[in-house]
Amino acid sequence: MVAVDTISFARGAPSLDIVDVDGLSEAARRAFAQDPAGTTAYGTAVGYPRLRQWIAEQHGVNVDNVVVTNGSMQADAFLFEQLVDEGDEVVVEKPTYDRTLLSLRQRGARLHPVELEPDGIDTAALGELLHQGARPRLAHIIPNFQNPAGYTLSARKRSDLLRLAAEHDFVVFEDDPYVALRFWGETLPTMLSMDPEHVVYASSFSKTVCPGIRVGYLVGPPDLISSIVQRATNTYISPNMVAQSIVYEFCRSGALDRSIETVKHALAQRAGALAQALSHELPEARFVAPEGGYFMWVTLSEHTDVHAVHQAAAARGVAFVKGTDFLLDGGENTLRLAYSGVTPSEIEQGVSRLADAVHACESART
Amino acid sequence: MVAVDTISFARGAPSLDIVDVDGLSEAARRAFAQDPAGTTAYGTAVGYPRLRQWIAEQHGVNVDNVVVTNGSMQADAFLFEQLVDEGDEVVVEKPTYDRTLLSLRQRGARLHPVELEPDGIDTAALGELLHQGARPRLAHIIPNFQNPAGYTLSARKRSDLLRLAAEHDFVVFEDDPYVALRFWGETLPTMLSMDPEHVVYASSFSKTVCPGIRVGYLVGPPDLISSIVQRATNTYISPNMVAQSIVYEFCRSGALDRSIETVKHALAQRAGALAQALSHELPEARFVAPEGGYFMWVTLSEHTDVHAVHQAAAARGVAFVKGTDFLLDGGENTLRLAYSGVTPSEIEQGVSRLADAVHACESART
Repeated sequence: MVAVDTISFARGAPSLDIVDVDGLSEAARRAFAQDPAGTTAYGTAVGYPRLRQWIAEQHGVNVDNVVVTNGSMQADAFLFEQLVDEGDEVVVEKPTYDRTLLSLRQRGARLHPVELEPDGIDTAALGELLHQGARPRLAHIIPNFQNPAGYTLSARKRSDLLRLAAEHDFVVFEDDPYVALRFWGETLPTMLSMDPEHVVYASSFSKTVCPGIRVGYLVGPPDLISSIVQRATNTYISPNMVAQSIVYEFCRSGALDRSIETVKHALAQRAGALAQALSHELPEARFVAPEGGYFMWVTLSEHTDVHAVHQAAAARGVAFVKGTDFLLDGGENTLRLAYSGVTPSEIEQGVSRLADAVHACESART
Repeated sequence: MVAVDTISFARGAPSLDIVDVDGLSEAARRAFAQDPAGTTAYGTAVGYPRLRQWIAEQHGVNVDNVVVTNGSMQADAFLFEQLVDEGDEVVVEKPTYDRTLLSLRQRGARLHPVELEPDGIDTAALGELLHQGARPRLAHIIPNFQNPAGYTLSARKRSDLLRLAAEHDFVVFEDDPYVALRFWGETLPTMLSMDPEHVVYASSFSKTVCPGIRVGYLVGPPDLISSIVQRATNTYISPNMVAQSIVYEFCRSGALDRSIETVKHALAQRAGALAQALSHELPEARFVAPEGGYFMWVTLSEHTDVHAVHQAAAARGVAFVKGTDFLLDGGENTLRLAYSGVTPSEIEQGVSRLADAVHACESART
């Protein structure tokens, strides 16, 4: 077989053509010029004050509710250290982000995976679980264009979830890095805005500015935020002031809004190209076309062995993440396709290779 | 009393006038222009590859020996998580950096503080401690211009320490952020270069580029580095690529060398001004004039109560850190003066206020 460049649907990251590199360079110039002292000094663990203020305004909260971190994964890590001890029960979506599963399992959490439906977590099933005596400390929810499924939590289920959180006294961890990337339709209110008492909210600039800038944040009750600031101080004194000052300049200059438009436009095209290519090349594949974000969850025929498909795909120059990575068990006929880093023509070519891999595995089985 | 602007000898941070802000801005411009993809993408937890390579070359090691982190405190945190479990014995200098003490105590380490002499840790006392049965996993050593004392570990004691590490099978953690800031005399070889098997080395660009850039690194055996890379991946996916790419451009353009010259020149002046002012205003104060770095350790008359002096100083508009913060016990007549963030005229004024505070406390006592 001739070696081919691999087309990757694996990594949830943007391609370089949809990153505003010139805007970033200009924001960096302004950061050093406008606030040389604040940009170059240590600062404190709350984050770069002007960006913290900007984020607080976006969410209509006080700065005491906000901590800005080195990427939102670091924020998650602090939050889990603060709230989840060995043996604590945690509700997760099924499927969910593989790194979240790993972090929670490493902390010795007892996980309750609850089915994710196309309109979000099955709140009836969660209600039943709670009724049967589950006592979660936390429910981890990716409400918009979920990773890995691309699904979005409906307004009704947001209310249901908050009602359950209030009744059963658990924290909803609203993990929301994709919210700005809605292709069409209306953005639903954050659960944070609906019930700030029971929600800790995380987001990031990785999908709207660029991942390499590593700026994320948490919004939550001041006492929780203050404990996390203490952890952050002890871990790294302060997060990256240079990066946060660049992000602040990027946001306030309007570059952020332009970048979001660019990204949304490109991603909507890519999602469309992916749906179309799958329909043509793999008509047996089931999926819900996402309304935003980076990901599509694909279910193949029942007896598919995704491990074999993964290998066959690699040999044909196409990469994806197996659905099994996002689940504690099951999912052998599922996979996650990230369309954020591939152009429409790469998508067409990649899906053709994927279909070839799937069909080769089917022939081998029969 | 008339309110005055506080002169701060408290924080180990540079004043803005010795930060090359224009050089940083230019390095940022080049980072986005030269390597837009590597600068803006996630990257991996090993750090920005070109900076990792540059660091490896500086130390004459392979890239597998290096991990670049979000500041060297974060590197310390990963290292302690990796090597120090509850109840493990750790040797620390007495006095030592307060955040190191805090981190180690939070991990439940059993600390063995060993006296720090003007030529470094008392290796004879350490030898005796080991002879009596201490079994440390790690010895934390700040070899150059120590924080808080400003002292430097002699060549002979470096050899002694490595001999003890080899005989008693412990790791020397060589924590070396100030090494580049030597005012005069020759830089001693790193312990890493003398015995790479028993040493893990940490350093940082906080003192040579700027603190807000938050770039530090570890050099150590590949298997240890690889475990730390795994921890870093699980904590934050990757460190700040934008910041590390800026640092790389700053280093390779020659701006780093120019910055170090600027900083050393200014700090040597400041250290001199501080020594002179103390001799004039507080002749009873004992100190060793440092050969580099940020700090001077001052011992006052035996019966001084540094807590009272701290308060009296605050009322007079001068801040410092009490020596007791750097010790598990004792040090009531000691303090740390950081001269990195104050100009010579501020130093003169600040020491005059400090002397006034000390004398007021003496009068109150007698």
